[in-house]
Amino acid sequence: MQRTIRVTIWNEFFHEQHKESIRKVYPEGIHGALAKMLGKNEDFVIRTATLEMPEHGLTDEVLENTDVLIWWGHRRHADVSDEVAEKVKNRVLDGMGFIPLHSGHLCKPFKLLMGTICRSKWRENDEKERIWVVEPSHPIAEGLPEYIELPAEETYGERFEVPTPDEVVFISWFAGGEVFRSGCCWKRGLGKVFYFRPGHEEYPTYYRDDISLILTNAVRWAAPRNFTRPTLGHYEALETVADKFAGRSEAERKHL
Amino acid sequence: MQRTIRVTIWNEFFHEQHKESIRKVYPEGIHGALAKMLGKNEDFVIRTATLEMPEHGLTDEVLENTDVLIWWGHRRHADVSDEVAEKVKNRVLDGMGFIPLHSGHLCKPFKLLMGTICRSKWRENDEKERIWVVEPSHPIAEGLPEYIELPAEETYGERFEVPTPDEVVFISWFAGGEVFRSGCCWKRGLGKVFYFRPGHEEYPTYYRDDISLILTNAVRWAAPRNFTRPTLGHYEALETVADKFAGRSEAERKHL
Amino acid sequence: MQRTIRVTIWNEFFHEQHKESIRKVYPEGIHGALAKMLGKNEDFVIRTATLEMPEHGLTDEVLENTDVLIWWGHRRHADVSDEVAEKVKNRVLDGMGFIPLHSGHLCKPFKLLMGTICRSKWRENDEKERIWVVEPSHPIAEGLPEYIELPAEETYGERFEVPTPDEVVFISWFAGGEVFRSGCCWKRGLGKVFYFRPGHEEYPTYYRDDISLILTNAVRWAAPRNFTRPTLGHYEALETVADKFAGRSEAERKHL
Amino acid sequence: MQRTIRVTIWNEFFHEQHKESIRKVYPEGIHGALAKMLGKNEDFVIRTATLEMPEHGLTDEVLENTDVLIWWGHRRHADVSDEVAEKVKNRVLDGMGFIPLHSGHLCKPFKLLMGTICRSKWRENDEKERIWVVEPSHPIAEGLPEYIELPAEETYGERFEVPTPDEVVFISWFAGGEVFRSGCCWKRGLGKVFYFRPGHEEYPTYYRDDISLILTNAVRWAAPRNFTRPTLGHYEALETVADKFAGRSEAERKHL
Repeated sequence: MQRTIRVTIWNEFFHEQHKESIRKVYPEGIHGALAKMLGKNEDFVIRTATLEMPEHGLTDEVLENTDVLIWWGHRRHADVSDEVAEKVKNRVLDGMGFIPLHSGHLCKPFKLLMGTICRSKWRENDEKERIWVVEPSHPIAEGLPEYIELPAEETYGERFEVPTPDEVVFISWFAGGEVFRSGCCWKRGLGKVFYFRPGHEEYPTYYRDDISLILTNAVRWAAPRNFTRPTLGHYEALETVADKFAGRSEAERKHL
Repeated sequence: MQRTIRVTIWNEFFHEQHKESIRKVYPEGIHGALAKMLGKNEDFVIRTATLEMPEHGLTDEVLENTDVLIWWGHRRHADVSDEVAEKVKNRVLDGMGFIPLHSGHLCKPFKLLMGTICRSKWRENDEKERIWVVEPSHPIAEGLPEYIELPAEETYGERFEVPTPDEVVFISWFAGGEVFRSGCCWKRGLGKVFYFRPGHEEYPTYYRDDISLILTNAVRWAAPRNFTRPTLGHYEALETVADKFAGRSEAERKHL
Repeated sequence: MQRTIRVTIWNEFFHEQHKESIRKVYPEGIHGALAKMLGKNEDFVIRTATLEMPEHGLTDEVLENTDVLIWWGHRRHADVSDEVAEKVKNRVLDGMGFIPLHSGHLCKPFKLLMGTICRSKWRENDEKERIWVVEPSHPIAEGLPEYIELPAEETYGERFEVPTPDEVVFISWFAGGEVFRSGCCWKRGLGKVFYFRPGHEEYPTYYRDDISLILTNAVRWAAPRNFTRPTLGHYEALETVADKFAGRSEAERKHL
Repeated sequence: MQRTIRVTIWNEFFHEQHKESIRKVYPEGIHGALAKMLGKNEDFVIRTATLEMPEHGLTDEVLENTDVLIWWGHRRHADVSDEVAEKVKNRVLDGMGFIPLHSGHLCKPFKLLMGTICRSKWRENDEKERIWVVEPSHPIAEGLPEYIELPAEETYGERFEVPTPDEVVFISWFAGGEVFRSGCCWKRGLGKVFYFRPGHEEYPTYYRDDISLILTNAVRWAAPRNFTRPTLGHYEALETVADKFAGRSEAERKHL
């Protein structure tokens, strides 16, 4: 019997409403495309939220009932309130999985969780991207071929200014001469973070089966498990260590 | 010819002024003791700064001329201004080394850089601490025996709520039953961070030769090197990749 | 629908046959106790193998049909044939999970996979061991309290001479003053390795529910997933990179 | 006052003697070119050794007096004796730095230290290689620009079958569509290992200033420091933990 995973897909939902060419690619919004894609997994319960909703759709009630939060943002990072960004960060520290996509590497919650500026090189040049699996035994690579290829994507390039990832699952090659750590895992508090590079708004990347498989794997990997919250703060010794003399030499005892 | 390392030692300097028993241990303040200790290294140029100074003694001019910042704080973390905390974080991302000591694990700049709450268990019980070197080949362990022992220290215990360290150099054993990752390294941006656990204000920890050796090693390890700042942001392709046809099959070419 | 995991439990099965006091603790052998413990999981298919069996019970047929191999050895590491040790190593590189227990840290396959001597400090002194969870969100820690305690165990101490683990899940505290990285994860080739410290032959450690939970979690974590074997060796370019001129400046082109 | 670093450069020295076109590139052998390059550092004492010398030039005396061993091999890996390979491995575990270059990723000592097969994809196609610095603050990247470019090199491609590196300093882009973790660090025992990808025998790679800088940095990084060899094996408790009652509850005491 499989556990249910509650997935919230957040999208700033700006480009799709303000640029015709992008609306054509994602008529239901990127969140809509992702919801349809991930909704094929019977054990996922999908919800979407967007910037313009009250509290950006990320109320306490929503966050508390989210196991994994997927995040797509780009142009309007600055319009996400600091309060909501802080709440998202805290829910991750408390166990929620977090999957920023593509330009989501510059969203407030990700930057708060990483502690760095998270920038990279980029250009829009319709270049081919080939994403290599460098850790084939990682759960997020399950079922994938040894590389996948996107005929045209926005190019990102190293140096990607993030903390050294706990695990690098994918490295991208771009036709124009760049490489990028495109699939990176970090633990933060009790939560897990997976950054995944592809998904420029002008390309139909989120309709692909291979991308669907990666995101499905990532959601399962990031979903919180049945963990025990550690006690933090003041803590009595668990046992009588006899007394202060325990573990001390004669000389030391005399000085106590 | 050795390069000079400019070290700034920051101390909240509260306990030493408000509690007689602590003043007796550190009559010149913890910063004073650390300055004397580290000042024995001819290649270190030492400066100190404290909470009550204007801008907490961490003006732009001071930060720009600091290679490694050591930080001791405890009771008055909240009194450090958000602005200064943010500046310290940014200087680390730009290459400055940062060495929070002991209860400095809860200072604002460290929490900003880690992205987590950085809490742990603790108690004050005069317990013996034995610090084991688990990476003897690490530069910070250079010259040390395989463990050092503090006759009495404040106890810290896991779970230490920090991101998985890039390197764990020391693990502590406490008489009361706890363990702690006492020497942890992280890279953040272009800067290096080393957290070192010991140094409760009631004990003369910062007069010890072994602690002096560890901090000296840590300063050398954390000092910025001659690195190249990566270009970030928009970036033209470095080369003519012929044209959009390069690296594309015939079929793909037809679609461009 | 859960996948079945085929678990082979290997035991040198020496102490239990040659020392009465140990036979009393493990009348059916350590492998017998582990088989009973892990056999409670309906999705595990358990098999055991011991040193004295032909090919130590690890024929090609057995290895090819093993998803996760658990290994307990101590006194008779040297009696394991180099050929079998090499085969075990190769099966791990090809995807099999491998879980050496306790003194299994010195078995031939583990040393081959680690590339180091894998030694540590040790003593038999009936000391209390308290095992702290340092990564509560790790799958192997699922369902555990924040520490478990063994009233008496053999003591192991750092420096544990292994490569830096990919993940440290547990750190042990021992009453006599040592610490130990007691639960360590490594990837090797397509396989996963988890070393778990407890289980001295004189103590009934492998009858405990908490140990059972850890080993069950570890088996699930180490079991191979549906990965793609990377192509290795000579490899034609996947695409016509136009020709040798692609990605080259005019000056460079002239030299080709 | 700088410490002296004793560097031994090992080369199988086969291609240069058997193929005219390669002799033209490296008339004094690859070891000769490397010796000249690294010999410019006044603090390095350089020695060379080749396959055909007795014990391949790696006698006990040579190994004991080597701080860092650089290794270039390709066609004749199998002709290196198992005994010498084992000795090299053991010297690394005892503190010697080890820097396998290019096809040296398949040499016996590296495979013994890694525990994996260490293979990758490859082809000889005169492709451009662009090597990106992904950890600009790493000592091995000191003084480098953010990438270096080799106009033509042998192509290597992921999946590189090695254990997850402790640190990845460089990632290569190849014109034909591959990426490769070209600069990888591992700790093994008390020694440090740095694998560096470039250096196909047909190209004058080892005459370049940027490559010279990288190898110089790598030698300094890999050179052993003044560490303490940990005590391994049986180990008495360092202190009287009072007695067996220490750290035990009343109930537990009754059972001892």
